[in-house]
Amino acid sequence: MSETPAPPTALGRHVLLELYDCDADLLKFPPDSERILLGAAAAMGATVMGSHFHAFPTHGVSGVVIIAESHLTVHTWPEHGYAAVDVFSCGVLDLEAGISYLTKAYGAKRTDQKVVERGLLTPSLKTRDHSASST
Amino acid sequence: MSETPAPPTALGRHVLLELYDCDADLLKFPPDSERILLGAAAAMGATVMGSHFHAFPTHGVSGVVIIAESHLTVHTWPEHGYAAVDVFSCGVLDLEAGISYLTKAYGAKRTDQKVVERGLLTPSLKTRDHSASST
Repeated sequence: MSETPAPPTALGRHVLLELYDCDADLLKFPPDSERILLGAAAAMGATVMGSHFHAFPTHGVSGVVIIAESHLTVHTWPEHGYAAVDVFSCGVLDLEAGISYLTKAYGAKRTDQKVVERGLLTPSLKTRDHSASST
Repeated sequence: MSETPAPPTALGRHVLLELYDCDADLLKFPPDSERILLGAAAAMGATVMGSHFHAFPTHGVSGVVIIAESHLTVHTWPEHGYAAVDVFSCGVLDLEAGISYLTKAYGAKRTDQKVVERGLLTPSLKTRDHSASST
């Protein structure tokens, strides 16, 4: 009797969002990115645990919002009008609402996104087995 | 005369690291993950700007280390022996050294990793053009 194996269960869902041709002025200073990421967290229905934003003299802003459901991060390159945003969720959140909010708030004219399932409980064949290497 | 277009230049390199079958005791408390991620940052040659780690009653630890070259994050599931680690770098870092450090420090017996180029300055055809939607 043949049996179809159950599909793997992912512990988290991770969106890698590329925001191009943004409003460059919004990429320069930490308070703008903090406001935008906190707005996105609210739009998704996330519970904010803390946020930390830093300015870099030549590379814009780096920031993180830690949420009960995982995190949002941003890195901006004002000179290229580009922001790299990550939304990692291990809970039930409205990710599409967050992505839409971020795209509009930064004024991005082009976007690209990848969605990666994190923590697959049924391991794929691609994982590397390190237990055999302890000779 | 045919001309080969220049390959796109990436602003950042992002490693999504899956650590399975870790030492579960190391996944439970923020100080262990903070020590491990700071050790990985040092192994890569990164400059640490700040770190923030939180415990979750039912979901292990969430943490971030902000580095001058971008960030490291971790989310742990002690009950599954699993940690999701991200290393985002926009500088010249020894990413392999960081990955090796993290794998050994958490005692991971299986790993999987994806490397994603972030911020491609020559846009791919897959990006969505939002400028045409402002009717």
